[in-house]
Order: sequence, then structure tokens, then C-alpha cells
Amino acid sequence: MAAVGLIATLTVAEGKNADFEAAFSELMDAVRANEPGNEFYSVFRSKDNPQEYKVLERYVDQAALDAHGQSEHFKASGPKLAPCMAAAPVIERLDGI
Amino acid sequence: MAAVGLIATLTVAEGKNADFEAAFSELMDAVRANEPGNEFYSVFRSKDNPQEYKVLERYVDQAALDAHGQSEHFKASGPKLAPCMAAAPVIERLDGI
Repeated sequence: MAAVGLIATLTVAEGKNADFEAAFSELMDAVRANEPGNEFYSVFRSKDNPQEYKVLERYVDQAALDAHGQSEHFKASGPKLAPCMAAAPVIERLDGI
Repeated sequence: MAAVGLIATLTVAEGKNADFEAAFSELMDAVRANEPGNEFYSVFRSKDNPQEYKVLERYVDQAALDAHGQSEHFKASGPKLAPCMAAAPVIERLDGI
């Protein structure tokens, strides 16, 4: 059981930053409260592009990442976040060392 | 005082992966033991390119990131890591939300 990581790059529509940040903050709180296999889950805004955000994530193993994707709070975030997005997310998967 | 984040992309020379991982693991231990302003500092290997690593970092504020760069353990890691690298690091700076 090796740790896994993920960088999600999210592009937010102009005028939707505040809505996105509010909805994503709710999701971060739910991840921290409900996912013992998550080690960190933290969103940042790019210094270069105010519409671009990066989510940095680490899980104890692949099963914990799978559980994240199947969680009720993750599924519930979709309809709140979708209207804020200007593009499909770009996901980079990483192996912990 | 807002949190800050950083993604460092490191390209390791072929044949140097084990040396790099050993030296970087020492650095991670030192960061966790000595930097109260660091929230996470975690290295991952790319699934697509075995020579590429990503370091995901979060600090409570810019002063904590500055302290990291000035720390004795960070400075001491340079001579151990430099012989392992195939390219200059690429640093992406992020603002916490």
C-alpha cells in the first residue's frame, strides 16, 4: 500500500471565483472531516492566472483515493462546482515515495 | 498572513533515482521536525516520466516559506541533491485560499 498524490488544475470562469472558492472550501472541510485516508487536500490560486486553481492531494493508498471519488460529499460538490468551471479539470496522478 | 503553496518539478538524472530519494527523504524529515510553519512537504514521482518528481508544499505564510529557504537543513541538502539532478528545478508559486 503506497501513498498516491494528485494535482488537479481547475480553470474557473470569470466572475465565478467567489462562488468556486466557497463551494470548494465546503468540499475541503468535508474531505478533512470524513476521509481518514486523505493526508492533505488543499486548493491554491495561481499567482500568474487568477482563473486557474491547483488542488494538491495526498492519500495513504489508491483505495483511499478511490474512496474519495466515490464519497457522497465529492459527488455532492459536482453540481455546485460545475457552473463555476470554464474548462474540464486536468488531473496529474503521482506515486508517493 | 495568507497561506502559500509551491509545486517544485525536479528532473533526476538516470541512475540517480535511489540517491535522490534517499537525500530527499532526509530533507522531508528535517522539514517536518524543524519547520512549524510548514503544513506539508511531500515528494512524488510522476507516473508518466520516472525521472520527474513533484514536491507539493504548503506554508502558513510567506515568512514560513522564506524561513524554509534559509534553513540549515535546506542549505545542507543542496550538495547532496545537486549530483542527482538533470535539470534546474521548475518552481510554481501559489496562493492559499
